[in-house]
Amino acid sequence: MARRTVGAVDLGGTKILAAVIDDTGAILGECRANTDTAAGSEGIADGMMAALRSAAESANVTVPMLAALGITVPGPIDPVKQIVGNPPNLPGWHDVPLGAMMRERSGLEIVMENDANAAALGEQAFGAGKGVAHMVYVTVSTGIGGGVVTNGRLVGGAHGAAGEIGHMIILADGPECGCGRKGCLEALASGTAIAREAAAAIKGRRAPDLAKRANGVDVTAEMVGMAAQAGDVVAQKILADAARYLGIGLMNVVHLLDPELIVVGGGVSKSEHLLLPAAEYVRENAFPVMLQGLRILPAALGDRSGVMGAAALALRQGS
Amino acid sequence: MARRTVGAVDLGGTKILAAVIDDTGAILGECRANTDTAAGSEGIADGMMAALRSAAESANVTVPMLAALGITVPGPIDPVKQIVGNPPNLPGWHDVPLGAMMRERSGLEIVMENDANAAALGEQAFGAGKGVAHMVYVTVSTGIGGGVVTNGRLVGGAHGAAGEIGHMIILADGPECGCGRKGCLEALASGTAIAREAAAAIKGRRAPDLAKRANGVDVTAEMVGMAAQAGDVVAQKILADAARYLGIGLMNVVHLLDPELIVVGGGVSKSEHLLLPAAEYVRENAFPVMLQGLRILPAALGDRSGVMGAAALALRQGS
Repeated sequence: MARRTVGAVDLGGTKILAAVIDDTGAILGECRANTDTAAGSEGIADGMMAALRSAAESANVTVPMLAALGITVPGPIDPVKQIVGNPPNLPGWHDVPLGAMMRERSGLEIVMENDANAAALGEQAFGAGKGVAHMVYVTVSTGIGGGVVTNGRLVGGAHGAAGEIGHMIILADGPECGCGRKGCLEALASGTAIAREAAAAIKGRRAPDLAKRANGVDVTAEMVGMAAQAGDVVAQKILADAARYLGIGLMNVVHLLDPELIVVGGGVSKSEHLLLPAAEYVRENAFPVMLQGLRILPAALGDRSGVMGAAALALRQGS
Repeated sequence: MARRTVGAVDLGGTKILAAVIDDTGAILGECRANTDTAAGSEGIADGMMAALRSAAESANVTVPMLAALGITVPGPIDPVKQIVGNPPNLPGWHDVPLGAMMRERSGLEIVMENDANAAALGEQAFGAGKGVAHMVYVTVSTGIGGGVVTNGRLVGGAHGAAGEIGHMIILADGPECGCGRKGCLEALASGTAIAREAAAAIKGRRAPDLAKRANGVDVTAEMVGMAAQAGDVVAQKILADAARYLGIGLMNVVHLLDPELIVVGGGVSKSEHLLLPAAEYVRENAFPVMLQGLRILPAALGDRSGVMGAAALALRQGS
């Protein structure tokens, strides 16, 4: 019997990843393109459609042969009306009916989810969380986001907005977050937070190695990771602090939801000075009963977790 | 057609509440007794059985006529094996097979849940959360506990231990919690935290009114509530601080789970100086999209939320 095949497009603020995926999670065709933010929403929808056509071509199918199309967007959406709210990474977008726009362009049934929730689903369907009933996905990059799976189902919540792990306050009255609140997890353990601490250390003349790496431009979390790897104790201390806060954030989620698995993705989490000590913090500090069998793993799908999640949604929809 | 009727026993550290309840949530008979902690687990099981018999008598039924028996216990349980772990409020209990003990005594099928999860279920089945798919229940008393309902189902988690809202850290390195961690919500907004702050104010001679109320004995959260009600600004400040922390804790849960409803129970939450300003904090600080239609309500079932939740479990089981 022929396998069911769907399309998936992961729309990001800088990149578009389109794929054609079958029900075993095999990627039959894939296409990467840049997001032309200057082109507006109609232009971007055209770009998404072009990327999907390329992916279909690589897979030796045509778009009309696909069973459904899953889309992820970088920000708040109305999953029922399939309208994209006001994504910070897509300037000028406001209540864009992307679902209808892509249905018109593709002729396919559309399902839609925000990127972090889709990534959670992708990891649960095809990645580190295969078959897991209680799972939390956390992405640590410029910001911190996430998605929650309980009783085997994604938790969208009342408005499809659940999973804002980065905006749980873990240090009341702490450093200011990009969201305007103070002491959010994102303000303490994200790439932005790491870079902020590194910049402060450079400014205070406490970080000669980081100053050299930055060489007059803005210091980045990546530079801090490389410096720590090379043995710089200032960089190591900055990452150790961020890791401890990340550990607190993960422990909080463990205490609330008692998951079997936490999957951590995102570029910043790849530093071994971050995820390993954060997991260690959880193991040393969470309630012992909740630690039995608890796994804390890096994302298995890399930058494909979102597109795989969109495919998982489309596979369910089309079935 | 005859309604289905079940038994329910809410075992607490000081009190036992037994009830006979039908599938509309009507309490047909009820019995309250003290928990004789000196009697050990066998004696307490006898006491639970005696209370159930009394409740059945009030309901004009006998125990064997009940469809099933729901039990709640104050602490960690293995809901499958129906073993009670090590409840802090039942000294001397360690891995007690309470399920088997009550099955033997009653001849009924047993279902079991911890108290906070049962209370969440009770409010969702028969109380403030009737028909709600995404709900969080928080109880604020000596400690802070809770239960989570997503997609219409209770979140037990991997070990049936989910819902430990009180042990989410919201002020890293803050005041010490009874659990040994620092800066847990429970260490900042529970009755214990409020009493601790009041005792410190008395000791520092900053709280003449509270000192008078305490009159040489330990000051309680209840005294702080009464003083605040009577206009004492020191007491009002202590409650305002606790309320703000409770607001942060509730907002964190909103950001993670995007619930439609938060139900707050527990004796300490009854002070209008606590729940109202905490709800206000959430409304002023959470993501606007998650606030649309969000309700924050006091528990509707009072001290019956646990027993009603046990009944809800038993009604499902027996059907």
